[in-house]
Amino acid sequence: MAATTPPTTSSYSITMRLHTTPDNSHIGTVATAISEAGGIVTAIDIAESRHDRVTLDVTCSARNSDHSHQLVEAVNALEGVAVHKVSDRTFLLHLGGKIEVSSKVALRTRDDLSMAYTPGVGRVSKALAENPEDVPRLTIKGNSVAVVTDGSAVLGLGNIGPGAALPVMEGKAALFKRFADIDAWPICLATQDTDEIVKAVEMIAPGFGGINLEDISAPRCFEIEARLREKLDIPVFHDDQHGTAIVVLAALTNALRVVDKKLETVKVVVSGAGAAGTAIVGLLLAAGVSDIVVSDKVGCLVGDDETLPPAQLDLARRTNPRKVRGTLQDALVGADVFIGVSAPNILKAEWIPAMGRDPVVFALANPDPEIDPNVAGQYAKVVASGRSDYPNQINNVLAFPGVFRGLLDARATEVTQEALLRAAEAIALVVSDEELNPSFIIPSVFDPAVPKAVAAAIAGEEHTKI
Amino acid sequence: MAATTPPTTSSYSITMRLHTTPDNSHIGTVATAISEAGGIVTAIDIAESRHDRVTLDVTCSARNSDHSHQLVEAVNALEGVAVHKVSDRTFLLHLGGKIEVSSKVALRTRDDLSMAYTPGVGRVSKALAENPEDVPRLTIKGNSVAVVTDGSAVLGLGNIGPGAALPVMEGKAALFKRFADIDAWPICLATQDTDEIVKAVEMIAPGFGGINLEDISAPRCFEIEARLREKLDIPVFHDDQHGTAIVVLAALTNALRVVDKKLETVKVVVSGAGAAGTAIVGLLLAAGVSDIVVSDKVGCLVGDDETLPPAQLDLARRTNPRKVRGTLQDALVGADVFIGVSAPNILKAEWIPAMGRDPVVFALANPDPEIDPNVAGQYAKVVASGRSDYPNQINNVLAFPGVFRGLLDARATEVTQEALLRAAEAIALVVSDEELNPSFIIPSVFDPAVPKAVAAAIAGEEHTKI
Repeated sequence: MAATTPPTTSSYSITMRLHTTPDNSHIGTVATAISEAGGIVTAIDIAESRHDRVTLDVTCSARNSDHSHQLVEAVNALEGVAVHKVSDRTFLLHLGGKIEVSSKVALRTRDDLSMAYTPGVGRVSKALAENPEDVPRLTIKGNSVAVVTDGSAVLGLGNIGPGAALPVMEGKAALFKRFADIDAWPICLATQDTDEIVKAVEMIAPGFGGINLEDISAPRCFEIEARLREKLDIPVFHDDQHGTAIVVLAALTNALRVVDKKLETVKVVVSGAGAAGTAIVGLLLAAGVSDIVVSDKVGCLVGDDETLPPAQLDLARRTNPRKVRGTLQDALVGADVFIGVSAPNILKAEWIPAMGRDPVVFALANPDPEIDPNVAGQYAKVVASGRSDYPNQINNVLAFPGVFRGLLDARATEVTQEALLRAAEAIALVVSDEELNPSFIIPSVFDPAVPKAVAAAIAGEEHTKI
Repeated sequence: MAATTPPTTSSYSITMRLHTTPDNSHIGTVATAISEAGGIVTAIDIAESRHDRVTLDVTCSARNSDHSHQLVEAVNALEGVAVHKVSDRTFLLHLGGKIEVSSKVALRTRDDLSMAYTPGVGRVSKALAENPEDVPRLTIKGNSVAVVTDGSAVLGLGNIGPGAALPVMEGKAALFKRFADIDAWPICLATQDTDEIVKAVEMIAPGFGGINLEDISAPRCFEIEARLREKLDIPVFHDDQHGTAIVVLAALTNALRVVDKKLETVKVVVSGAGAAGTAIVGLLLAAGVSDIVVSDKVGCLVGDDETLPPAQLDLARRTNPRKVRGTLQDALVGADVFIGVSAPNILKAEWIPAMGRDPVVFALANPDPEIDPNVAGQYAKVVASGRSDYPNQINNVLAFPGVFRGLLDARATEVTQEALLRAAEAIALVVSDEELNPSFIIPSVFDPAVPKAVAAAIAGEEHTKI
């Protein structure tokens, strides 16, 4: 099944600088040409008007990179219009990076310097040497998070390395500030060796109040996280695992409210046994789900299959109580919930009617989901995806800012499974009974109640370690 | 020789909250008591006035921690006045840390998110994976510096460890922003092992445009810097060495303008063979000084003394052409310049008259110099120190912001000795012939011309590696 045409998006917004003959009719023909080529004009500015030439800046959204080239060609083909230069708004926005460091203290006078730096700072350092427990209170450590990656599994791009991963880590840091007032700094590591990553993070930990692991490929990410949790006295959280798991559990909780089923009794099929799939399974089990079948490239994972790699075998042994064997299609028969964190277009629409009453389909592969959400919606009762252009977007931004806010506020030394469960419940409860419906199972990322609720839930009592 | 009484400073500024009987005369008696005890009242606020009690907030500067306790006791001894609470302004200023991360891009709408984060950021990361040379232009790497320490030699405090060093590194980051618009982030390492430090910095380098090593003790700092310069494709600069050396050379250049002598022919004595002393010697030699005697705890270093540790022996072999032996006092006979980066009160005033015409004395040990600058000024023509309460403060803030600004602007991959020489010359030249006098050989740290001149000098042509 082919995916539908992707929508235009401002992430593919371009600005064309046009030189036209001095004739105002060009504004209309340019707008029409862009529109007919499928683009959306968002702004037209006259940059210069001379007797022999008019310069226009035309900003428009395209579907993707190829489409933006088509729009440029459509405009360039117009009589009396020449495209002089094309700027890409997303690239312009990235010039010089997306985050910066600011001083919170005035440094105008010599007295300011003598308090913020020498000699005054020496007294603070001396006090901290004597009372190390005050470090989080008197330094940035109490509000800072390292966003650590090795660039091995970046978005849908794969192993692009630490330098190319930096814009993503900066974006994450910007989101940390925007949604939870946390000071996060990207740490892009020049290694993909498990031991070296663990060692490097251990070395830099004294200056941070938490470690957010990001875009590190499975199965290395499991060992890296486990070893760091063991070694460090600050919380370690792999967002691709636990952030995703929290939001999925929140969405599933509300989807089951819609279809009036219980976590304890639903049959769940998880497609994908990578970082996200593994964490989702772990959190669903902790939440009380008992019937989960994990399906991977090899088909359904069964605990007696000794040929599986260690991570998958462990997963298989914790799931599939009915010993379901075969393909994804086999697993779906009679299932209540499909959760895909795997690959594009692997779920066939015709398999959905074989699921139980009121199927729930979460097609979360990015950027192209397991099934086109519009298609899935024809057969399933509740559909969610990772895409922002459909309802019910499963977006980690709902979880990680509040999670770290809560951890930092509580001066937590670790993240517990119970804290993650409370965070998922908190997100689910932001959607009231009145608001809840098949197209609104998850709150907006811009709802300020979300990070507050998550932080409060995380900072609550903690018992069980993950 | 005892140091003179240190001045009051706002780095020891306290605010006392006082409860007094309802009698306005207390304001006068409190101010008088503080003044008589040697403090300086900078503010008095009436926080609350009731019929039975007046609450006053009195802010005052003290000489040091003991003195601030004396001020509190002096006030507390007054009839009808009780000190309810004492706040330390320097500690208040450090609450929550001194720096923060800000987003440079708006994150108000879904469109904003889709450009700064997924899916838009994916296009930028993809482009960077294909064209890694664009990373500095499209990410924070082009403007960011890691301020790296192991906490082994922090200010005058010694080995206080990475956590207690954090306020100093934050202060440094704040200065980077204030004076050169550079985004610096503290990296406080949980190790003092040379190999581990080198490895950790190598691992985190991809996200930074430069490495500022800070407060790492000698001789480890020499090897760490040398190995990192070999390994990394971004500049590595140990401020305690090279920042100090640049400012000392600038000050010396101008001191010699005052006394009308030449770098090439002066006799220089450097007291202290640690990080700063070694770097100062290296830069003075590169600037053309030929007669330098280094004096350490063991006395004058001579190149034929095989008992010296490797770093000192190397230093000895590059200096002391006249094979001067003996004590610091011996070395000073006939010398033109004393540069101290060693220990408090080791230079006796009576030795200075044995120096050559118009002696130049730089007593830079912090916080207590090799000789009280006021005393030295009775015998020497030009005196400089590290203290802000005397003229001619030798302050690294004059160098490091502009140095890194220039390196980042030039997308430099290394720091060269010639660039450091140019930086020193640029700082010296900020002081015009009209301004130059024995009490003004170095510009103010607040002179905006300084970082600009240094950056321009550093970004110039570069030839010789250090």
